[in-house]
Amino acid sequence: MAKVFHTLVSVDEAFSMLGRYHRLEPLGVEVVGLEEALWRVLAEDVGARVDVPPFDRSEVDGYGVISADVVGAEEDSPARLKVVGYSKIGEPFPSEVRRGEVVEVDTGAAIPRGVDSVVMAEYCRRVGDYVYIYRSVSPGENIAFTGSDVTMGDLILNKGCLLTPKEISLLSALGFKSVPVFKIPKVALISVGSELRRPGEELRYGEIYDVNTYSISSLLKEVHVSTKVYGVVSDDYDLLRKTLSDALDWGDIVVTSGGTSAGITDVTYRVINDLGSPGVIIHGLKVRPGKPTVIGVVNGKLVVGLPGFPLSAVMIFNLVVKPLLLKIMGIRSSTEFKLPSILAEKVVGGKGREHLVPVILVDSGNGFISYPIPTASGSISVFTTADGFIRVPERFGFLSEGERVDTYLISSNWRPADLVIIGSHDYGINIALNLFNVRPNAKVVSVGSLAGLIAVGKGGSHIAGTHLLDEETDTYNVTFISKLGLTGRVVIIRGYSRNVGLIVQRGNPKNIRGVEDLLRDDVVFTNRNRGSGTRTLLDVLLKDLARDYGVGFDEIARRIRGYTVEAKTHTAVAAAVAQGRADVGLGVEVAANMYGLDFIHLRKEHYDFAVNTGNLEKPMIKEFIDVLRSDEFKRRLESLKGYEVPEDVGTTLQQLS
Amino acid sequence: MAKVFHTLVSVDEAFSMLGRYHRLEPLGVEVVGLEEALWRVLAEDVGARVDVPPFDRSEVDGYGVISADVVGAEEDSPARLKVVGYSKIGEPFPSEVRRGEVVEVDTGAAIPRGVDSVVMAEYCRRVGDYVYIYRSVSPGENIAFTGSDVTMGDLILNKGCLLTPKEISLLSALGFKSVPVFKIPKVALISVGSELRRPGEELRYGEIYDVNTYSISSLLKEVHVSTKVYGVVSDDYDLLRKTLSDALDWGDIVVTSGGTSAGITDVTYRVINDLGSPGVIIHGLKVRPGKPTVIGVVNGKLVVGLPGFPLSAVMIFNLVVKPLLLKIMGIRSSTEFKLPSILAEKVVGGKGREHLVPVILVDSGNGFISYPIPTASGSISVFTTADGFIRVPERFGFLSEGERVDTYLISSNWRPADLVIIGSHDYGINIALNLFNVRPNAKVVSVGSLAGLIAVGKGGSHIAGTHLLDEETDTYNVTFISKLGLTGRVVIIRGYSRNVGLIVQRGNPKNIRGVEDLLRDDVVFTNRNRGSGTRTLLDVLLKDLARDYGVGFDEIARRIRGYTVEAKTHTAVAAAVAQGRADVGLGVEVAANMYGLDFIHLRKEHYDFAVNTGNLEKPMIKEFIDVLRSDEFKRRLESLKGYEVPEDVGTTLQQLS
Repeated sequence: MAKVFHTLVSVDEAFSMLGRYHRLEPLGVEVVGLEEALWRVLAEDVGARVDVPPFDRSEVDGYGVISADVVGAEEDSPARLKVVGYSKIGEPFPSEVRRGEVVEVDTGAAIPRGVDSVVMAEYCRRVGDYVYIYRSVSPGENIAFTGSDVTMGDLILNKGCLLTPKEISLLSALGFKSVPVFKIPKVALISVGSELRRPGEELRYGEIYDVNTYSISSLLKEVHVSTKVYGVVSDDYDLLRKTLSDALDWGDIVVTSGGTSAGITDVTYRVINDLGSPGVIIHGLKVRPGKPTVIGVVNGKLVVGLPGFPLSAVMIFNLVVKPLLLKIMGIRSSTEFKLPSILAEKVVGGKGREHLVPVILVDSGNGFISYPIPTASGSISVFTTADGFIRVPERFGFLSEGERVDTYLISSNWRPADLVIIGSHDYGINIALNLFNVRPNAKVVSVGSLAGLIAVGKGGSHIAGTHLLDEETDTYNVTFISKLGLTGRVVIIRGYSRNVGLIVQRGNPKNIRGVEDLLRDDVVFTNRNRGSGTRTLLDVLLKDLARDYGVGFDEIARRIRGYTVEAKTHTAVAAAVAQGRADVGLGVEVAANMYGLDFIHLRKEHYDFAVNTGNLEKPMIKEFIDVLRSDEFKRRLESLKGYEVPEDVGTTLQQLS
Repeated sequence: MAKVFHTLVSVDEAFSMLGRYHRLEPLGVEVVGLEEALWRVLAEDVGARVDVPPFDRSEVDGYGVISADVVGAEEDSPARLKVVGYSKIGEPFPSEVRRGEVVEVDTGAAIPRGVDSVVMAEYCRRVGDYVYIYRSVSPGENIAFTGSDVTMGDLILNKGCLLTPKEISLLSALGFKSVPVFKIPKVALISVGSELRRPGEELRYGEIYDVNTYSISSLLKEVHVSTKVYGVVSDDYDLLRKTLSDALDWGDIVVTSGGTSAGITDVTYRVINDLGSPGVIIHGLKVRPGKPTVIGVVNGKLVVGLPGFPLSAVMIFNLVVKPLLLKIMGIRSSTEFKLPSILAEKVVGGKGREHLVPVILVDSGNGFISYPIPTASGSISVFTTADGFIRVPERFGFLSEGERVDTYLISSNWRPADLVIIGSHDYGINIALNLFNVRPNAKVVSVGSLAGLIAVGKGGSHIAGTHLLDEETDTYNVTFISKLGLTGRVVIIRGYSRNVGLIVQRGNPKNIRGVEDLLRDDVVFTNRNRGSGTRTLLDVLLKDLARDYGVGFDEIARRIRGYTVEAKTHTAVAAAVAQGRADVGLGVEVAANMYGLDFIHLRKEHYDFAVNTGNLEKPMIKEFIDVLRSDEFKRRLESLKGYEVPEDVGTTLQQLS
């Protein structure tokens, strides 16, 4: 634990240090057929060997003419010319055309000899062997000349260019049957950790499933390198040495994960150093998460050790391994998939260390907004929501709201979500999404009502579920629009009601009757996150209690065991009670019901939806409101315990002034 | 030719008509190992079968304590507790912890029984078997509880979800060894056309290379369906019938291209109709390009005939075939890759027909801008620049400048370009790009100086090469900033000089001496596109001539044979002269030189670079200017005939007021 790392370096410093020990250059050149060339990297500049089009061809359907024959042709004085043939695609007219003659031509067909322009069919009227032409043309009109699109000798693709479908199209059009490309690097993959089990195996206490083998091999497939999975190796020097040695024999690059922390388990570091020279070059990045990253070179081959936590491993893969791989693949231009975006809220990193923060990318209707996701470092549920991550630079320690940031995408096959719902957690949201005509590519993030309202106000999300109780007016949600300065920017759409109360063990063994029982010494509570509607409700109830007891709110809060322990969802609260971690929590009736727990009703609350006014006309938002109003939604939601859908569901609520 | 099509339908109408004849549903379900599951589509909702984390674990390095033991612990009154063990990752501490005892824990390690919170290592000081703790903690602090990230039973992935690296990570974390997925559709691919040759073969007159086999099969690989290429079939009924019949036996879907126009060559239509019922359902889309699109169903299998032109085929593939494929793959949510963008300039389509217009996506620093690319329908060079296309709706007939549009990306592996250079064509640009430290992922589009300046002004491109002569002041470029209303938004960076003049056949057989010779009856000229600096120069020279002759400019222009024939680049002008299509063109000396042609010097012009002031601090722009100033750039550019790099290259030019 807490063994001092060697000097931590920044990502740029790491690249430059590594450059002194590894050439980071392609591994050789081979020629492949065009059918096999997709996702390969061009090893030479490619010039056009033919003209495109390879012959003068017509750009329209019509008649090929000698322009001098149609000089002065107009609607009331057409030229009458003799049709001597037809030039079809693939069957050019074989003879020369003389004055007074024309040839019918198809779009794309070769221009016959003698013809210098084409009159579009709509200006021509065919009568037997003759055609009346009602318009004059200039020489060259409607003809695509030989080489006018691509001229023989033109440089068309540069060395180091990735061959995507567009480049493959271009190469085929220019007649290339095969192309010289760089050899594909071979990447070996090892997961290190005694606690790791393969998916499908039984977990023993303290064990978790190996994720990095699957996540990193998937990302390697996206880069189209050759990959071999060596699987899980426990934190055992001899075992890892044997496996790493085999992997180095097979591959050009070895990527490990885990086993690189500074504790006793720091086995990867020692094995890399012992296997060959120069060994470990970088041990520790000035990046959070990413400190345990190891980069080494063993007998000319690259070894990178990623952190063990899945999201950390994926972010450091994208930030460090992918750029190195692209260089070794021979990709000359940068191809990192970063999207420009505006930061939805201030993000605090920390001086002396770059911070990587996962974000959701939201199409605000006016560019992308990056919404930072609150997450614990070991979280894997973040994979359901995060599109990418942003870098909070070491020298600032924070990024401000509204700042322009680059968002690094986790996967290169990224699609923007159709619908982003950030706010309070409720079971009705998933029911609504399933009732869409086509289920949208939606992201639902539970951060609580308050943060949800603010995100909607900034365009950082499309919809927020909210159930904020205003203690002054004893109403829900609507008054918070003006309180938060969101008037005109956000409207509240009426949702439904749900029962909220205390979730306790089945049979209520602690005999809990109300909020005042939370103050008891023998009762452990589990709270919700700050800004959640449920937390707001609790605090309103506790303030009443504090008044009754004649003490301050803080005093009351301090007396509740577990007041500072925060769960993010109703399900998590119920799970904590079901697992005995707490005796009681505050949540909705349905959560208690799902876990077979008892429920003490406190009140019926309004769960409504906040929408940014700028998004009200979006088809997805309209469909969401239509679904809320549907009979099927009412039927499905009310089949859950404690829910009630009112008559005015889906209407826009106004603040009474 | 011009045979009347059946009723043309819109894309949405086509989908709804097709829905009556084909279920557009997945072809079955199979279970695959997680290693094989990337890019497959989930066939069932997936719920968590384990909790994540599967045990209470520490979120920090530190000491696991009973919170009651550290109540009141502060910097000057630490708690002193006995260390009874160490809980490491994969090696949990086996016994229960009692009051007065603590256990050292690693991040991610299991929380020992009895411990209810963890104090971070930085608030602890170890002395032998004891540890001093300088801070109190609440119950639950720094512990990730069982199921707090994902709770057993949580719905984590929906049926119809595409399994990207993120979903694969999630599935592995939840212990799934295998998953039920929909069967992969088999897509057969046929290129129809007697004029088509395979790349590598010799082209005969009137023939072109088959592109669609390569472009469409590449796009199919991106969608991860199973593909079989049947290659080129000529416009022959029996041959196509045999091939299509084989393809229908093998595949679930057949995609053809070409052979669908309304001419005599309309063989695809007849074959589909004759092979089985119901045959052709849609013959013709109200989309330009895309009118010749055919959609049919033959004995339950889908057949789509794409237009023959490569870009048309690719756009209709993306607009029509891909959404159908995604449905048959079982992808429930929409996954079209559209990016929101702002249109850089007005685009005119046409009423009664949706128009698809290829665009470049430019990162303006404030969202994406779509810059429409002027292109001929048969162009293949457009594949070097186009990122995607926009849809100009049938009912409007145009889209306005500044309008928000969705850009459909051609390839799903799209990356934004680092540097977009739209403007005048010059050979120095490629020299400069090759001198970058890392060659940028750059796009260079030749549209002429004027359109280039305007694009830079709108943020629709990063740099424009420009050589616009101001006849009033006889200066270049700078005065156009205020003339175009771009003051403050665009600056001119000094570039270099180049010789411009008349390019004529070798030996000058027509004895051309100057611009006045363009008026001769026996001289055919080839012009440049409107808005190009060279065209502007020509028109200035012609106006002088018109004054000398005492006639109007229009009169002069009308007398020049070929004045209306436009070439886009200096190379294209030189090629036209070299191929004998014209006797003379206006262009730079180096182009004449490259084609071994003669050159009649007219003047030395300034070729400078326009940059949007908002982009001046971009690293790519700074490097571009640094490269211009480098000795190596001067050396390489001046090795080309007619170029001169001045002392003040790279400086910002100011308009003298």
